[in-house]
Amino acid sequence: MKLSILKDDLNESIQHVSKAISSRTTIPILTGIKIDVQPSGVTLTASDTEISIQSFIPIEKEGTAVVAVVEVLTPGSVVLPAKFFSEIIRKLPAPDVTIEVKDNFLTWIRSGTAEIQIVGLDPEEYPLLPQLDESHTLSISSDLLKAMIRQTTFAVSTSETSPILTGVLWNFKQERLKLIACDRLRMASRESHVETANPIDFQNIVIAGKSLNELSKLLPDQSMLVDIVVANNQVLFKMDTILFYTRMLDGTYPDTSKLIPQSFQTELTIDTKKLADAIDRAYLLSREEKTNIVKMTLKDESTVEISSSSSELGKVTEQIEAHKLSGELLSISFNSKYMLDALKVIDSDFIQICFRGAMQPIIMKPEDHSNMLHLIMPYRTTN
Amino acid sequence: MKLSILKDDLNESIQHVSKAISSRTTIPILTGIKIDVQPSGVTLTASDTEISIQSFIPIEKEGTAVVAVVEVLTPGSVVLPAKFFSEIIRKLPAPDVTIEVKDNFLTWIRSGTAEIQIVGLDPEEYPLLPQLDESHTLSISSDLLKAMIRQTTFAVSTSETSPILTGVLWNFKQERLKLIACDRLRMASRESHVETANPIDFQNIVIAGKSLNELSKLLPDQSMLVDIVVANNQVLFKMDTILFYTRMLDGTYPDTSKLIPQSFQTELTIDTKKLADAIDRAYLLSREEKTNIVKMTLKDESTVEISSSSSELGKVTEQIEAHKLSGELLSISFNSKYMLDALKVIDSDFIQICFRGAMQPIIMKPEDHSNMLHLIMPYRTTN
Repeated sequence: MKLSILKDDLNESIQHVSKAISSRTTIPILTGIKIDVQPSGVTLTASDTEISIQSFIPIEKEGTAVVAVVEVLTPGSVVLPAKFFSEIIRKLPAPDVTIEVKDNFLTWIRSGTAEIQIVGLDPEEYPLLPQLDESHTLSISSDLLKAMIRQTTFAVSTSETSPILTGVLWNFKQERLKLIACDRLRMASRESHVETANPIDFQNIVIAGKSLNELSKLLPDQSMLVDIVVANNQVLFKMDTILFYTRMLDGTYPDTSKLIPQSFQTELTIDTKKLADAIDRAYLLSREEKTNIVKMTLKDESTVEISSSSSELGKVTEQIEAHKLSGELLSISFNSKYMLDALKVIDSDFIQICFRGAMQPIIMKPEDHSNMLHLIMPYRTTN
Repeated sequence: MKLSILKDDLNESIQHVSKAISSRTTIPILTGIKIDVQPSGVTLTASDTEISIQSFIPIEKEGTAVVAVVEVLTPGSVVLPAKFFSEIIRKLPAPDVTIEVKDNFLTWIRSGTAEIQIVGLDPEEYPLLPQLDESHTLSISSDLLKAMIRQTTFAVSTSETSPILTGVLWNFKQERLKLIACDRLRMASRESHVETANPIDFQNIVIAGKSLNELSKLLPDQSMLVDIVVANNQVLFKMDTILFYTRMLDGTYPDTSKLIPQSFQTELTIDTKKLADAIDRAYLLSREEKTNIVKMTLKDESTVEISSSSSELGKVTEQIEAHKLSGELLSISFNSKYMLDALKVIDSDFIQICFRGAMQPIIMKPEDHSNMLHLIMPYRTTN
């Protein structure tokens, strides 16, 4: 294997696949990045068995003019230690680099005056990526997918006692894609219309929140199409030059629809930012107490009071004007961190909050669309 | 005590004094910031007993016009918990804030619609700052002082086995200020001419590296004058509106002049940046081996080779052109991290490196001035 390649393009590709490198892997070959050189370009692969990322560097790229990125001298493969390879490429002195594999996978890297020899590993030992049946493929805009992940993934459970709840549930039915995340104290759900050429649906696909956060970093902000392939126990996200494979979590995701009350006693519409800022100030105090408990009191039909108190530190109180308020007045306590997390991702100037009483779940929705729903369980307090 | 103050000015002042708040203090009153309100303005004080910082906010500030910053309604004092006070002020909704102390030091903070009560502490319990005799005062430009601290403090010892070496030695004699930091394996020294109105000198003033790093963050980058007051066991740095007090370390700083060889066998002058970049690449490999050992070989009178090798990972080799090289050729191994630290602070395009043999200290100096000297002990290796 021998090639010459532009440093910046190689570096960018290494950064992409490096997100799949785990520092805690027990499989030596997976501490490396696999490099495959074919006449059409260079493919980098990294994996931690949960996720695998593949990035392709074509021999030419198009900009204002066609630029040669890779010159393939001899096709071939090698596995190089990810951390050292990634750092040394970033710090090479010249804009291009030559990589040549010699006997026993000893790899020579030359750039400017620098010459590096890296002990490579046998690419035959590298695990093969799964071959997926692509008949279940959904195409979705990258920016929408990124938003849906951001608006749900924060709510996954971080406790390993119910592994299934550390994932996000994906359902697709009648051209509606729905993502749900919940732990025992809150839930976030987001849905969207997604057109498909062929009628497909899938249920109970659960993907680890951790994996989705890594995927999110690779998704471009523009509205490029991403293909989602669902097959066996794997999901593949296909971007322009990047393939992102992730394992599904085993088990059955609980039915969260039963958690949501069907009727309410009180409905409040309020300015999202004003509420978030007031809760943030009350949260500062409640965090010092390590409870995060903040109280919301509906004082009259136009006044909402946000408060928290600590016997040691003091008290925070603030009144905000309600935009609309109907039904019974009440006072309810909740985890302000959970409320803040939800308010941060609600993409609407006003939100609607529905209550069924001080001991029942709080439901939050954007005022101007019904594609998003957040649920927070109240605290049972005596004051 | 009652006052009204602009939030941003109060916030800036809190950020300044907060650098003296330690999260590990065992003295409850020192978890707080002391606020003193006099007709002329507001003084904030914070301390961790090692360092104390005082910041003054005058009632008016001058810009294109005179702006009222503070309105003093009732002079007085209180101590408020630093962390919560600092966070809540930053997040207040309006540009101004009213602070009022009521019975038992309960303090009311009002801004916009937000109302916060903080349980304050008795300012009488707050330790008094030392009263210093200001007869030993030195005035130095802020940017020069900041540079001198940056160019030496990195070399202090981090080990508590010789507490005196965790500090930087300050000597002032015949209008020369000299700072020295060393642990057992390296030394950094920097001196400068500083004019004084009255003849003063001081010896063996040792200030903790930690304290100097905090001071450095407060020093403005402009060339404003800073007064340095040396008295008893305290040093006070007086800036425009900030006073920074630090304790001196007890003990006698070792005589480092004996470490520096008086004659050399080899003298090399080389491009600072090229050498730093080459050593940085070799360092990447040596760091993986957890030794940081890099070898410099003077191959002939114009060629310097930088290399490191690891049986597991591979080898990095690079040749750089010497600008000037005289004396015996040699090969010497050293801690590349120490060399990089020194190269980063040397403010000269070319540096001079002097050797007395492979087992003797390496001396590094800027090529164009003699106000700075770095010493690195070599590694005794067999290869």
